Amino acid sequence: MNHPRQFDKELADLKRQLMMMASIAAKMTDHVITALASRDESIAQDVDGLEQDVNRMQLEIDEIVLTLLATHQPVAADLRFLLAATRINSELERVGDLAINISENARTLLQQPPVKPLIDIPKMAKAARDMLDKAMQALVQADPLLAQTVIMMDDIVDRLCDQVKDDLLTLMKQNSDATVERSLALVLVARHLERIADHATNIAEDVIYMCQGKDVRHPGISRKG
Amino acid sequence: MNHPRQFDKELADLKRQLMMMASIAAKMTDHVITALASRDESIAQDVDGLEQDVNRMQLEIDEIVLTLLATHQPVAADLRFLLAATRINSELERVGDLAINISENARTLLQQPPVKPLIDIPKMAKAARDMLDKAMQALVQADPLLAQTVIMMDDIVDRLCDQVKDDLLTLMKQNSDATVERSLALVLVARHLERIADHATNIAEDVIYMCQGKDVRHPGISRKG
Repeated sequence: MNHPRQFDKELADLKRQLMMMASIAAKMTDHVITALASRDESIAQDVDGLEQDVNRMQLEIDEIVLTLLATHQPVAADLRFLLAATRINSELERVGDLAINISENARTLLQQPPVKPLIDIPKMAKAARDMLDKAMQALVQADPLLAQTVIMMDDIVDRLCDQVKDDLLTLMKQNSDATVERSLALVLVARHLERIADHATNIAEDVIYMCQGKDVRHPGISRKG
Repeated sequence: MNHPRQFDKELADLKRQLMMMASIAAKMTDHVITALASRDESIAQDVDGLEQDVNRMQLEIDEIVLTLLATHQPVAADLRFLLAATRINSELERVGDLAINISENARTLLQQPPVKPLIDIPKMAKAARDMLDKAMQALVQADPLLAQTVIMMDDIVDRLCDQVKDDLLTLMKQNSDATVERSLALVLVARHLERIADHATNIAEDVIYMCQGKDVRHPGISRKG
């Protein structure tokens, strides 16, 4: 069962599959935010089809991980990578789900006039997208320092999200009846983007776990035993 | 390395650890919702400490899974269980995070008079709690039918969440300035509870995957190859 070269090739294929899945999930987010910002719903029309691709890849990747574990019985770094891969797989599938959630809010928003020009939401989307790209790059290059920068970027997105929420609250207080529904939909879009950034952060933490055998998910807590 | 009895004992221990983690995460949610409904902040005071317990258990459980995979190199059902365990571990940690998010909203809400009597939010919390309990019971009993009922319950929570959102939107439109901030905080509490129910659903799907080697996460999609 042990063909080291074949195993290395299969691990490289798995990384490529994860990268492809990430790029589809990122594309979904780009499309819905562009549709929202440019007020052109047609741009978001392909997201449902792309979600099907993401869901199909999730099932395929889990099968690959299972097969690699069963047939090669890896230990140490390879085992850590495969455990990280199964978790990163779930994270990416949820990024796809969140893009779908945003597209639902976008549909509501595009049926009515804009409540305000969108500035911070596209900024949040760009930052979240950056985080996802860097987290996946850190995975492929096994680069814990790059992963660490992703974790630090999460604060920027959180602050932008608070900013969006505060601005919309002010708007809702001023205009109430007329804009409250659309403002709430925009708050939810911001929350979905914040969660995409959280998933990128989770991926970065899995990369660090994989690289160093060191868990950064809860600093200050040491394991028993 | 193969001591079947010892391995079975270790798998049973791992299940017990996951159950304990789930019961702490559920307790956190109960406490914050009770604090919110009874307007008694003191009830929620222990959630930060409990979150530390959940985070510590997450690290320990991941180490146990890694060690069991490396030392026993399981295949088939045991391998599927261990992969499910590492994912369920992440789901439970996020339930703890969401309870913390709710407690932050609760703190804001308890500093001001109530906007309305809470009826649907405690109902949502109870349903989400039920789903989590049943998903974990399905895990321990390896019961895919019980897991299936959890997945069906998710619709109830989603509908309650829409109800809460609609009611609060109406309230915000009527009263705007005075209540908009508190109403928005309640919408977010409902969304956090909806996400706890989503995590219970994810756990149920992992249980079905584990039991049957069949993936129900994306029905209608068959795997390649």
